[in-house]
Amino acid sequence: MRAYDIIDKKKRGEELSAEEIKFFTRGYLSGEIPDYQVSALLMAICLKGMTTAETVSLTEEITSSGDSLDLSMLGDRTVDKHSTGGVGDKTTLVIAPIVAASGGVVAKMSGRGLGHTGGTVDKLESFPGFRTTLTEGEFIEQTKKIALAVVGQSGELAPLDKKLYALRDVTATVDSIPLIASSIMGKKLACGSRSIVLDVKYGSGAFMKDAESAYALGKLMVDIGRARGRNMAALITDMDTPLGRAVGNIPEVKEAIALLSGEDIPDLYEVCISLAAAMLSLSLGIDEPDAAQRCREAVESGRALAKLEEWISAQGGDGSCVRDVSRLPRAKREHIVYSVSEGYVEKMNAEKIGLVCCSLGAGRRSKDDGIDYTAGLTMLKKTGEYVKEGEPLAILYTSGDADLEILEREYIGALVIGDKPKKNPLIAGRII
Amino acid sequence: MRAYDIIDKKKRGEELSAEEIKFFTRGYLSGEIPDYQVSALLMAICLKGMTTAETVSLTEEITSSGDSLDLSMLGDRTVDKHSTGGVGDKTTLVIAPIVAASGGVVAKMSGRGLGHTGGTVDKLESFPGFRTTLTEGEFIEQTKKIALAVVGQSGELAPLDKKLYALRDVTATVDSIPLIASSIMGKKLACGSRSIVLDVKYGSGAFMKDAESAYALGKLMVDIGRARGRNMAALITDMDTPLGRAVGNIPEVKEAIALLSGEDIPDLYEVCISLAAAMLSLSLGIDEPDAAQRCREAVESGRALAKLEEWISAQGGDGSCVRDVSRLPRAKREHIVYSVSEGYVEKMNAEKIGLVCCSLGAGRRSKDDGIDYTAGLTMLKKTGEYVKEGEPLAILYTSGDADLEILEREYIGALVIGDKPKKNPLIAGRII
Repeated sequence: MRAYDIIDKKKRGEELSAEEIKFFTRGYLSGEIPDYQVSALLMAICLKGMTTAETVSLTEEITSSGDSLDLSMLGDRTVDKHSTGGVGDKTTLVIAPIVAASGGVVAKMSGRGLGHTGGTVDKLESFPGFRTTLTEGEFIEQTKKIALAVVGQSGELAPLDKKLYALRDVTATVDSIPLIASSIMGKKLACGSRSIVLDVKYGSGAFMKDAESAYALGKLMVDIGRARGRNMAALITDMDTPLGRAVGNIPEVKEAIALLSGEDIPDLYEVCISLAAAMLSLSLGIDEPDAAQRCREAVESGRALAKLEEWISAQGGDGSCVRDVSRLPRAKREHIVYSVSEGYVEKMNAEKIGLVCCSLGAGRRSKDDGIDYTAGLTMLKKTGEYVKEGEPLAILYTSGDADLEILEREYIGALVIGDKPKKNPLIAGRII
Repeated sequence: MRAYDIIDKKKRGEELSAEEIKFFTRGYLSGEIPDYQVSALLMAICLKGMTTAETVSLTEEITSSGDSLDLSMLGDRTVDKHSTGGVGDKTTLVIAPIVAASGGVVAKMSGRGLGHTGGTVDKLESFPGFRTTLTEGEFIEQTKKIALAVVGQSGELAPLDKKLYALRDVTATVDSIPLIASSIMGKKLACGSRSIVLDVKYGSGAFMKDAESAYALGKLMVDIGRARGRNMAALITDMDTPLGRAVGNIPEVKEAIALLSGEDIPDLYEVCISLAAAMLSLSLGIDEPDAAQRCREAVESGRALAKLEEWISAQGGDGSCVRDVSRLPRAKREHIVYSVSEGYVEKMNAEKIGLVCCSLGAGRRSKDDGIDYTAGLTMLKKTGEYVKEGEPLAILYTSGDADLEILEREYIGALVIGDKPKKNPLIAGRII
């Protein structure tokens, strides 16, 4: 078998065998196959595609390239959720306690934020003292005890994905649905949960710009997971507009707490209940309407909020912040953005809003940057809402020296205000 | 400008500007753009193509990456020929003397053989003493004096092509018509002749497997040359069957001498006169029928043979071999291959025959191999000819220890003998 012939085969649009994919990826990891052959294959995959069988094989190589978590001692109710990344996406903070309070078992690895999107690990670290690195023993023990633990990704998870992604990132070969699917699922399968729910975002703030390609990605990931024996479901959700009203670490933590405390945040509530219900349905093997009802009850009864507090405390964080958010650090500077025109918010560019947030100090431009947990913003007017000239549009927060005048203009530039009240459906599709 | 964006643009199938191609290729040469980004772009070019304008820009970068010969002091009758490579292709040995004896000026760089195809430089070195490296001064002086000089390619010719080709060779990105065209024309334009005739081969022994793709390659190369101000023509010629009856260095030299001495070798004569006429027509600005007539006269009068002798002597070779071919070294072993079946030779696989020849010692498997000038073969029966069982099919020559029994079987395996006498047209197209 030769790397050359494998590249040539894919260039001609033919299907690679599991053996060929294994030969190529293992040769890459061992250093026998050089970067320049791999990037040629990646480009051929981008332009010629891969079948589901090929994508399953590549996923398997990614999973098996590193450590895998064995969660079998936690029983068969383990359930994970993965979001393809968005702006203002604090769903894990909300749904992990809902599911854990309703009989599901959530033992999860999450990522950090990069660029315009935030990461769950950063949000959790907003709680003073919270530890996102646990030993495997601590992780399992905590899950056994409270049905919930979330840690950062370990360095030994899917090294093949790390190497491939670094190369894709510099060779314009990121936007291939089979490559994205195998990257996500390769890591997710290594995390060991029996059931997995995918939140595939589409729109200006997401990687997939339209619902059709998000659906294709979701379908492929569901097929991969099922081929590997997992219970799978996916939701296709809108990320044209950021989710909820808060963006940034502490601002989003506060909003998650507010939601679990009973505050009315319709879009965030709808997405969270849908995702949590899908998780609980797979985890317990019950109908989705029944699962949704249990999730709503967990919120209304306060059990989900209590689970959040228990969770934060279990990982060393200051759980009392959940009952008294004023204990969370507060931004040194606040700045109100006023509308300069009147009309309906027709569009919000979620990616631009994510970048404003990043400039306020909430995100990293490169992997080694530090972050300002207090930084972020509150969107007072969202898509479909009416605003008058001079009315407040948003509040910006930072504890750093960001130029708020410039960021105010950038925020205003991220909105289209016109005469049509229109909104995308929040949930554009379900794959069950 | 970023390499990433250029790769991404081509991946999306868009046209790159001359500036972008310059940025990318110069960055590659200087080492700022790494192999893995270049191979990704090459694969995108293979699958998405390049326009003529893009191909002209890439050709220009290849030409200007190294030294260029200035032949302007030789007047405007300088004319070059390039063949895309074949088996038994001894045309340069025949047509260079014909054109030079008819008023054209041939100051040419030629290549060495590699793999199943032979190279003119190796054939010339079959003449004891022949020097294929001349200083630029010697090269110009000789051309001024006898209108003819052929040397090997210098190391400083088109280094960008060398670097790109080495990468294409290991990333399955060789078979792209725009990349092939820019590689050939980039070097050819650096060689300085005012007029260029291309012999684009198609068939089993050629890189282009069918006449249509050979035509597309020829047309693109003609367009590139004209965009750079050269007089251009191309012939599309058959390489399903090797040209003439001899393959190998000394065997081909002998056949070229035989043709110029008046022996009747129809296919070789037709292709040589057509190519020589195209060259002379461009060189002198005369009609093609007139040019063809002058070329035939040069052969019939013996002037072309005399020019060959003059040429070989001018470059230090033993010119007397031209009048007495028995002075050329003779193979130590000869082996007659007899037919094992009866019928018409329906097909000859030129590539396989070239590889038999290579195994006899006539060619190189890698760049640094030495060669046996006496090695090769004579095809006694060619496509369209009838053979009886037990009749001689071919004679193999070698001075080495090749296993002639094995090569005999391989030779027989390269032929299809059946009941249909059929032949491709020798010249399938002309671009003038």
